[in-house]
Amino acid sequence: MSDLLWPGDARSGAICSDATVLAALVRVEEAWIDADLSGLAGPDDLPALAVAAEEGGNPVIPLLALLRERLGDDPRAEVLHRGLTSQDVLDTGLVLCLREAAGRVRGDLDAQIATLAALADRHRHTGLAGRTLTQHAVPITFGLKVAGWLQGVLDARDTLARAARLPIQLGGAAGSLAAPVALAGSPAAALARVAATAERLGLPLREPWHTSRAPLTGFGDALVTCTDAWGRIAADVLVAARPEIGELTSARTGGSSAMPGKRNPTLAVLVRRAALAGPPLAATLHTAAATMVDERADGAWHVEWATLRTLARRTVTAGSQTAELLAGLRVDEQRMAATLAAARPGIDAEQRTYEQTGGPYRGATDEIIDAALKRAGERPC
Amino acid sequence: MSDLLWPGDARSGAICSDATVLAALVRVEEAWIDADLSGLAGPDDLPALAVAAEEGGNPVIPLLALLRERLGDDPRAEVLHRGLTSQDVLDTGLVLCLREAAGRVRGDLDAQIATLAALADRHRHTGLAGRTLTQHAVPITFGLKVAGWLQGVLDARDTLARAARLPIQLGGAAGSLAAPVALAGSPAAALARVAATAERLGLPLREPWHTSRAPLTGFGDALVTCTDAWGRIAADVLVAARPEIGELTSARTGGSSAMPGKRNPTLAVLVRRAALAGPPLAATLHTAAATMVDERADGAWHVEWATLRTLARRTVTAGSQTAELLAGLRVDEQRMAATLAAARPGIDAEQRTYEQTGGPYRGATDEIIDAALKRAGERPC
Amino acid sequence: MSDLLWPGDARSGAICSDATVLAALVRVEEAWIDADLSGLAGPDDLPALAVAAEEGGNPVIPLLALLRERLGDDPRAEVLHRGLTSQDVLDTGLVLCLREAAGRVRGDLDAQIATLAALADRHRHTGLAGRTLTQHAVPITFGLKVAGWLQGVLDARDTLARAARLPIQLGGAAGSLAAPVALAGSPAAALARVAATAERLGLPLREPWHTSRAPLTGFGDALVTCTDAWGRIAADVLVAARPEIGELTSARTGGSSAMPGKRNPTLAVLVRRAALAGPPLAATLHTAAATMVDERADGAWHVEWATLRTLARRTVTAGSQTAELLAGLRVDEQRMAATLAAARPGIDAEQRTYEQTGGPYRGATDEIIDAALKRAGERPC
Amino acid sequence: MSDLLWPGDARSGAICSDATVLAALVRVEEAWIDADLSGLAGPDDLPALAVAAEEGGNPVIPLLALLRERLGDDPRAEVLHRGLTSQDVLDTGLVLCLREAAGRVRGDLDAQIATLAALADRHRHTGLAGRTLTQHAVPITFGLKVAGWLQGVLDARDTLARAARLPIQLGGAAGSLAAPVALAGSPAAALARVAATAERLGLPLREPWHTSRAPLTGFGDALVTCTDAWGRIAADVLVAARPEIGELTSARTGGSSAMPGKRNPTLAVLVRRAALAGPPLAATLHTAAATMVDERADGAWHVEWATLRTLARRTVTAGSQTAELLAGLRVDEQRMAATLAAARPGIDAEQRTYEQTGGPYRGATDEIIDAALKRAGERPC
Repeated sequence: MSDLLWPGDARSGAICSDATVLAALVRVEEAWIDADLSGLAGPDDLPALAVAAEEGGNPVIPLLALLRERLGDDPRAEVLHRGLTSQDVLDTGLVLCLREAAGRVRGDLDAQIATLAALADRHRHTGLAGRTLTQHAVPITFGLKVAGWLQGVLDARDTLARAARLPIQLGGAAGSLAAPVALAGSPAAALARVAATAERLGLPLREPWHTSRAPLTGFGDALVTCTDAWGRIAADVLVAARPEIGELTSARTGGSSAMPGKRNPTLAVLVRRAALAGPPLAATLHTAAATMVDERADGAWHVEWATLRTLARRTVTAGSQTAELLAGLRVDEQRMAATLAAARPGIDAEQRTYEQTGGPYRGATDEIIDAALKRAGERPC
Repeated sequence: MSDLLWPGDARSGAICSDATVLAALVRVEEAWIDADLSGLAGPDDLPALAVAAEEGGNPVIPLLALLRERLGDDPRAEVLHRGLTSQDVLDTGLVLCLREAAGRVRGDLDAQIATLAALADRHRHTGLAGRTLTQHAVPITFGLKVAGWLQGVLDARDTLARAARLPIQLGGAAGSLAAPVALAGSPAAALARVAATAERLGLPLREPWHTSRAPLTGFGDALVTCTDAWGRIAADVLVAARPEIGELTSARTGGSSAMPGKRNPTLAVLVRRAALAGPPLAATLHTAAATMVDERADGAWHVEWATLRTLARRTVTAGSQTAELLAGLRVDEQRMAATLAAARPGIDAEQRTYEQTGGPYRGATDEIIDAALKRAGERPC
Repeated sequence: MSDLLWPGDARSGAICSDATVLAALVRVEEAWIDADLSGLAGPDDLPALAVAAEEGGNPVIPLLALLRERLGDDPRAEVLHRGLTSQDVLDTGLVLCLREAAGRVRGDLDAQIATLAALADRHRHTGLAGRTLTQHAVPITFGLKVAGWLQGVLDARDTLARAARLPIQLGGAAGSLAAPVALAGSPAAALARVAATAERLGLPLREPWHTSRAPLTGFGDALVTCTDAWGRIAADVLVAARPEIGELTSARTGGSSAMPGKRNPTLAVLVRRAALAGPPLAATLHTAAATMVDERADGAWHVEWATLRTLARRTVTAGSQTAELLAGLRVDEQRMAATLAAARPGIDAEQRTYEQTGGPYRGATDEIIDAALKRAGERPC
Repeated sequence: MSDLLWPGDARSGAICSDATVLAALVRVEEAWIDADLSGLAGPDDLPALAVAAEEGGNPVIPLLALLRERLGDDPRAEVLHRGLTSQDVLDTGLVLCLREAAGRVRGDLDAQIATLAALADRHRHTGLAGRTLTQHAVPITFGLKVAGWLQGVLDARDTLARAARLPIQLGGAAGSLAAPVALAGSPAAALARVAATAERLGLPLREPWHTSRAPLTGFGDALVTCTDAWGRIAADVLVAARPEIGELTSARTGGSSAMPGKRNPTLAVLVRRAALAGPPLAATLHTAAATMVDERADGAWHVEWATLRTLARRTVTAGSQTAELLAGLRVDEQRMAATLAAARPGIDAEQRTYEQTGGPYRGATDEIIDAALKRAGERPC
C-alpha cells in the first residue's frame, strides 16, 4: 500500500490495508467456525476480489466463493459462514482492523504525553509572550502553553480509550441470530457460540448493532479528537516556526525543489493537513448512522468502510508524525525572552491594572502544569 | 425567539436564545464576584448589544460597558469582571446554556426509552418482514426492530451523559490565572475563588481549556449521536408510513396546502431533517478545535458559539419531536402480518437452507429484546 | 433580528430574516394571483406562524390559513394559492430572498475589487518577503500578493454571477402543473401564467425543479466561494498583523475586556470565522440534493431552508466586513522592507542559482498584476 | 490499484492512480523543458517515492532526485525543473489527472442523458402515483419523473463542463514567475514559455493561482453536483425497488451471502453511497481554499491532493454505475398502474377540488418533458 498523495502514509504500514482487511475477514470466518483457514486467500487475490465485490456490493461474497472453491471437498467448506451474513463478517472484520489502528494511535499518544509532560515541566518558567487574537496579551511561560497542549492530548487519549472498545457485531441476516439459533439448536447455544467467537477475536460482546452505529461514530469522533489535539499543537508550532517569531524549530525539516537552504516545518504541515481532513470524514460516519434504515441500509452502510479506513490510517500517520515532531522540538528560550522583552511595556498593561508589579505575573502556572502532569501519570478515564 | 424556517423550533423555547445567553453571561459575572446583578441588563438590551458585539468581536465587552454604566457609582462596578477575560465569561456562559439544553434532551431521551422499551416488549412476537438493502430478507418481529432503535437511543443517552458534564472554563487573559492570582494574593486563593465560582454555577472544576476544546467537540458529537439515533428511527418510520407498506402510522399527521385529506408523517420528516443537518455542524466544532492557535484563536473560537447554539436547539427540538412521534406511533399488526405472508415463500429461503422449518425462526429475539430492556432500566454508563 | 453570537450579523439587516421571508412568501402568492395582499400579514404574526408551521411541516400552510381568515369574504380568498403547492411558494419565496442577498454580496464584491485593484497597482513595487510553508521563500511585492487576492475575489464574483440567476420554482403538487392547467384550461395558458408570475417577480423561467436542486447547491457553493476568497485574504492579514511581523494593520481594531491598549484585528477574525463555518453548510445543501426522493422529499427539502438563510446572512455580513477591512488596510512598507532586508541573503538563494543578480528578481509581477487589473475592469463571465 | 472497501472502484481503472499521477508529474516536467523523459520513472518507483515524499512534504521533490540520478550526465538533467517549484508540477499534474477524470464522467453523463431522454419520451403517458413526503399526492407519469431526473443530470453536465476547463498552474516559487523570467531573459519570454507549456499539455492559460483555489473548489463542487443528481435518481430507484412498490427493477442485481434468491439493487445502493460520501469531501476543498495563507499554505495545500483524487475516482465510478443502472432499468407499467388505481380516489382529491374530472390531470407534462428533451439535445451551457 502506498499513497503518493498523502505523504507520510507509509507510517501506517499495513494498518487497514486491503490485505489487512482481507486477513481480518478470514479471521472472523475462522473464529466463527473455530477452524484454520490460513493460506487460502491472500494479497494476490485482492485485485480479483475487489472487482468481484461490486456484484453483491461487498467483498465478503466473492471471498466466500473463493474460499469454498479452494476448500473443495474439505469439510470446512460445509460449515464456512453458516449462520452468518456478510455484514457480520465485514463489520467485525473492520472492528479488528480499527482496534489495531487504535492501538497504534494509543502508543503514539503515550509517547506524546511523556514528551509533553517533560517539556511542560522543563519550561515551566520559560517566559513567553502570551498571544490572543494574534496580538500580544500577557506574559506566560512556554510550560503553560505546553500544559494546554497536553490537556488536549489527554482528552484525546481518554476519548479514544473509551471508543476503542469496539464490540463484535454479529446478528445474522437481520439481526435476530435466527440462523445461528437454527444451527445451534437454542438461543442459549447460539449466544454461547457468539460469545466464543468474540473471545477468540478478543472482542467485547454486544447485541447486534447492525443499524445502530454509535460504536463506529464514536470511534470516528475519537480519531478526530486526536487529530484536533495534534492540529492545535501544529498550529502553534507553525506560528512559532515563522522566521519573524522563531521560538520553535523542528529537528526534522524538509527542503524545497527550488530554493536551496530552505527549511520547512514539514511534519507540522502534514499534521495540520490531517487535522483539516478529519472532521468531514467523521461527519460522513454520522450521516451514515443517521440514514440507516431497515435491517441493513441501502448505501449508508457501504459508505462507512472506506471512510473508516481512510480516517484510521491518517490518524495513525498523524499520531506518529506528531510524536516525532514533539520529540524533535527545539525551544529557543532566548528568542522567547527577546520577544517578550520587546513586547514590554504593552504586554504588561493588564498587570499594571492590578498594581501587581512586583512579581513575574505567573498566576497559577505551576498549579496548572502540575495538574496536567498529574493527569498524564494517571490511567485513561 | 422564532424560527419560521425550522418548524418545531418553538419546542426549544428559550434554550440558548439570545436572552438566555445574556442571562448566562450575567450569571457568570455574578458568580465570580458573588453579587447580584439582576435587573441590570435584559432582553431589551439585546439589539444594541448584538450590534456592539462586533467592535471587540464578542458580546461580553459591550455587556460589561452596559453593566458598568448602569451600576454607576455602585461599588459592584469596581469589582465587576476584575480578573476575568471575555472568553472566561463567554465559554462558561455557553456551558451553562448547553447544560440546560442537555437536561432537556435527557428528559426526552428518558421518555423515548420508556416508550421504546414498552413497545419492544409488547411487540416481541409481532411478525414483520425483515428487510435488507430494501428487499425482504428474513422474518423478524417488530419488537426486535424496536430493540435496535432502543439500543441506539441508549447509546445516545450514555454518550450525552458523559459529554454533558461540561466544566467551568476560567483562566484569565491567557489561561494562567495571572489576574485572579494578582487579585487574590496567591495561587491557592485564586484557585479557591475559581472553585467557589464553579460551585455557585454548579459546574465541575477543570484547569483552563481555552484552546483545548475537546469538552465542546465531545458535546457536539454527543448531540449528533442523539440525532443519529432519532434519524435512524425516523427513516424506518418513513418507510413504514408509505401507503404501499403501511405498517406504521403516526397519531399526529400534517395536512397539505393543496391536497385535501393528505396525511403526512410530519414529525418523522422533521426529525430526519435535523439528523441530516447535525453532522456538518459537529464537524465545524472539530475544525475549530483543530485550528485553535495561540492563547485565543483568531476565528476558530468565534465560530463555535452560534454553531453550538444551533446544534443545541435543533437537538432539543428533535428530541421532543421524536418522543412525541414514538408516543403516538400506531402499529398495524395486520398489515405487518399480511406483508410477511405475501413475502413467503421467498422470505423463508434462508430458513429452508437450515432445514429449520418447524418453528417461527425467531432466533434470539427474546434475548436481544431482554438485553435492551435491561439496559434501559440501568443508569447511563 | 439580532444574533448575539454572530457579531456583525446586524450588517445583514433584514436579509432573509423571518419578516423578509414572510413578505417574500406573500409576494409569491400576490404574483400568482396578480393581486395586492399587502397589510394582511406582517412581523407581528411571526411567532404564531412559526409555531403553527410545525403541524404541516412548513410555514406556508398556516400563512394561507391566516390570509384566508383575514380576507374573509374578499374575492381574493377564493383564488388565493389556487393551483399552487406550498413548495412552490416556499422555494420561490426563498429564491427572492437569496437574490436580494446575492445583490448585497455583489455590491461588496465590487467594492472589494475596486479597493484591491487600487492596492495592487499602488504596491506593485513594494517589496515583501514571499513566504511558503511559513518560511521565507523569495522576494515578491505586496502588489503581487494583492493581485492573487484579487483573482480569488474575481473568481468569486464570476461564480456568484452565474449562480445568482435563480429561477422560479413552480410546478404544483407534484411538478406536473396539473392544477394550474386545470385552472387555466390548457398547458399553454398555464405556462403563460407561470411566465407572467415569473415576470412579476423578475425571475428567470425554468421547468419545475422541486427535486432537482442544482440551482440551490450552486448558489450555496457560490456563497462559499466568496467566503473562501475572503478567508484566504483574512488569513494573510492575520499573519501580517502579528506584532512580530507587523506588515499590515487595520484601521478598525477591537479592544479587550481585560487588557487596556490591546488592538485586535477583529474584522479579519470575524471574516475567518465565516470562512470556517461556510463549507459544511454548503455540504448540507448537497447532501439534501443527493437524498431528494419522490416528488417532494421527506426531510431533505426541509433542511435546505434554514441552511440557506444562515449561509446567506453570514456571507452578506462577511462581504461587508471584508470590504471594510480592505478599505481600512494600512500597509507598513518600511516594515515590509526591513523584514525583506533581514531575510537576506537566505531569501535570495533561488535568485543566486539563476545567476540573475543584477535586478530586482521581480519576474512577471507587472504582467500578472496587469492581468488582474484588466479582469477587474471587465464584466463577470 | 484496487480498493476492496469501495466496490466498483475498479471502474475507475487508472484514473488518478498513483501511477497516473506520477506519469502526469513527469509530463509536466517534460512539457516545461520540451523534452522526452519517458522510461525514467514508473510504477516500480512508487513505493520508494511515496515514502520519500514525506521529507519535503510532497512527491515532486523525490521524483526530481530520482530523475536527476537516472539522467546522470544527460544534458536534460541540467534543465530539468529549472524555473519551476514543486507546487507548479503537482498542481498542473493533478489538473491533467482531473481533466481525464472529467472526460470519463462526461462520457457517462452523455450516456445517461441519452438513456433518460429515451425513457422520458417512452413513458410520457405511463401513469404513476406522484408521492410527496412519502404519501400519495396526485397522479403523474413516469416520464415526468424521469424528466426531472434528466434536468438534474443536465445541470450536472453544464456545471462540470464549466468547471472542467482547469487551467495550468505555474508561477514559480512564490507565484511571480521570477525564476522563469530569470531563465528566459524577459517577462514576455517567460510568459511565452508558460504558454507553450500549457499548449503542450492542452491546458488553458491563466495567471498563477497557487493560493486562489476557486478552480479546484469549483471542480469539486461540480463532481458533487454529479453525484447529487445520481443519488437523487438512486433514491427513487431504491424506493421503487422495494417489493411492496415494485415499480422499477434493475437488470443487474446482486446476491446475498446468506439468503438464496435474494436480488439486491446493488448498483443503486453503491451510487447512493457515493452521493453520501461526496459533499464532505467538497467541503474539505473549500476549507482548504479558505485557509490558504502566504504564497504556499502550511497544510491547506497538502490536504487537497488526496481529497481530489478520492472524489474524482468515486465520481467516475458512480457515473459508470449510474449509466449502467439506467440502461438496465426495467419499468413495471402494470405495477405502476395498479398502485395508481389502488390509490384512488384519495389521490384524485386535488383534481376534484378543481372540478377537472374529465381528463387525465396530466398538466403540462408533455411540455415539461419536451423542454428536458430539447435541452438534452443541446450543448452544455
